[in-house]
Amino acid sequence: AARDTGSPTLAVIPGDGIGPEVTAEALKVLEVAAPVKFESTRYDLGAERYLATGEVLPDSVLAEIRGHDAILLGAVGGKPNDPNLPPGILERGLLLKLRFELDHYVNLRPSRLFPGSVSPLAGHVLDKGEVDFVVVREGTEGPYTGNGGALRVGTPAEIATEVSVNTAYGVERVVRDAFARAQKRPRKKLTLVHKTNVLVNAGSLWWRLFEQVATEFPDVTTDYIHIDAAMIFMATDPARFDVIVTDNLFGDIITDLAAAITGGIGLAASGNVNPDRTAPSMFEPVHGSAPDIAGQQKADPTAAILSGALLLDHLGHAEAAAAIEAAVLADLTERDPGTSRRTSEVGDAIAARL
Amino acid sequence: AARDTGSPTLAVIPGDGIGPEVTAEALKVLEVAAPVKFESTRYDLGAERYLATGEVLPDSVLAEIRGHDAILLGAVGGKPNDPNLPPGILERGLLLKLRFELDHYVNLRPSRLFPGSVSPLAGHVLDKGEVDFVVVREGTEGPYTGNGGALRVGTPAEIATEVSVNTAYGVERVVRDAFARAQKRPRKKLTLVHKTNVLVNAGSLWWRLFEQVATEFPDVTTDYIHIDAAMIFMATDPARFDVIVTDNLFGDIITDLAAAITGGIGLAASGNVNPDRTAPSMFEPVHGSAPDIAGQQKADPTAAILSGALLLDHLGHAEAAAAIEAAVLADLTERDPGTSRRTSEVGDAIAARL
Ligand SMILES: CC(C)[C@H](C(=O)O)[C@@H](O)C(=O)O
Ligand SMILES: CC(C)[C@H](C(=O)O)[C@@H](O)C(=O)O
Repeated sequence: AARDTGSPTLAVIPGDGIGPEVTAEALKVLEVAAPVKFESTRYDLGAERYLATGEVLPDSVLAEIRGHDAILLGAVGGKPNDPNLPPGILERGLLLKLRFELDHYVNLRPSRLFPGSVSPLAGHVLDKGEVDFVVVREGTEGPYTGNGGALRVGTPAEIATEVSVNTAYGVERVVRDAFARAQKRPRKKLTLVHKTNVLVNAGSLWWRLFEQVATEFPDVTTDYIHIDAAMIFMATDPARFDVIVTDNLFGDIITDLAAAITGGIGLAASGNVNPDRTAPSMFEPVHGSAPDIAGQQKADPTAAILSGALLLDHLGHAEAAAAIEAAVLADLTERDPGTSRRTSEVGDAIAARL
Repeated sequence: AARDTGSPTLAVIPGDGIGPEVTAEALKVLEVAAPVKFESTRYDLGAERYLATGEVLPDSVLAEIRGHDAILLGAVGGKPNDPNLPPGILERGLLLKLRFELDHYVNLRPSRLFPGSVSPLAGHVLDKGEVDFVVVREGTEGPYTGNGGALRVGTPAEIATEVSVNTAYGVERVVRDAFARAQKRPRKKLTLVHKTNVLVNAGSLWWRLFEQVATEFPDVTTDYIHIDAAMIFMATDPARFDVIVTDNLFGDIITDLAAAITGGIGLAASGNVNPDRTAPSMFEPVHGSAPDIAGQQKADPTAAILSGALLLDHLGHAEAAAAIEAAVLADLTERDPGTSRRTSEVGDAIAARL
């Protein structure tokens, strides 16, 4: 659980590719902004460690990480199609393992079109209103549980299944968290995104609990749309969204689109939050490890820096978090889209504004 | 099986909402364009029939429909949240039932940004190249099989599952179809979209068969991207796509986004194709029944008309299909975005060009 006094402890997992570069900038900015001094411990986990040692996340390391107040993660993932990296080994064994083990049931992904950042959407779409919404993605269930299997692998008779697991326990808690977040925002609007017309078992459960929890929040306006229709609204009228709650896989898909339309994955921050504080929450940019540009100081660290702001907010330092956001906003507004800065220069520029 | 001589038979399912209006225009255009005279039989299926009789798709009706050369469908679906329409009853019982029973394993969804149509994407994105791709969505497996269930429904201990079923048989045939389609196009490029890093069982199967079938098509360039990354490319560089092959649910999601960025769901046509011709294929616009504007002659019938072109192409009338596409193209180019035409006026205008 987070302690507000003394030195809060931070487990830092820089990871692979551009992960270490963007994490360094996030730490640089955190240090300047935070009203407390963090005690950081660095954990080398990711593709590099796996390729060198065969270890993904040893139990002892997980136990150590669990003892911290929060986790800051860069990005994990090796070169695409590396034959020595079985697909999913790092994702399932490290990233998802942390999310599941530490009960990060709220995967929080704010999307905001900052002034100065370039959206792929046309002016006639952006003119409809301000784009500023949050996706509350369920983080511990759905098709991400690793349930399922395969029979007769490699033969023409192979069958492979993936099971989406949804429980009343798991759905209700994330839905309630989303309602509480919606209630705190000026528009107080919550949209459930699912595919209730096809995935009728999971859909009925989500729908019923959504309706049920809604009665506790009579001042929150509710709305339902299918995941496919959500794609259309995201592209043609993103201003209509305030808070979205959805399952693990739909949330994965919708938040990458949300990041794209609000200026790109280089700006998208996320928090893997355990609202009950029974274990540390983890903050990471939505982007991947981008091995093709690693080590060249080409990556934009803004998403990592904004993830640091979410971390501060979670630990109770709302003012410091807001200060980082304001500094990022100022930096974005004054960025010259014609010149590209080095990763460290972006971090320096944002830190200098604090 | 399709018969090229005599009168091909058409099962027409106008459906609900705007379905009958757009279907009337599709038939109007088909009649003018087709080199043969169709013998059409109309089947009243959908929300209205269900609400009046409790019937969704009686076995005898399915058997009759099966005897036709092709099916033209408008749209099915009642008013949102109608308490008398259990969620999914029409989708699962009618639309998906037809796709599964008639083995429509290739759900074909072309996306093209026609000149004159309005994209929500900005000029700097559209300038990257021509947007003209086809999604080959698997139609008979994945999370759409209705596998899964629920336990302790309505209690705090409820658990609901959805099972994505993937077989070598089902994946290989759709992947091969997609390769064959890619090979016939100028760019000869096929992109597999999945989520192999999380859905490792299904992902491995798709990946392996994709690689395996690729060896039969050495002139087709291949590419893999995760569904979440596909969202980003769709929004920031859709010109990069030529043919996409993907599973049933990812295909549902990606094709609505594709429709949105290429001028909207009012233009998106689709074919539920049985390439082996063991049963009739079914052609339908991607849009839904839009009950809010039903009966007002406000719906754009272009998607239904283009679905009619796909139908003609499937029955061996490639020239007539191309003529419809050309007429639509001309109509779109000369449309005055400032004036709205009635549904029948759009059909008349396109028919008049043939
Ligand atoms: C890397 C992958 C496992 C992960 C996910 O699918 O959740 C990523 O895409 C994300 O969104 O954080
Ligand atoms: C109505 C629904 C069952 C259907 C689907 O999910 O396939 C629709 O969205 C589509 O894309 O044709």
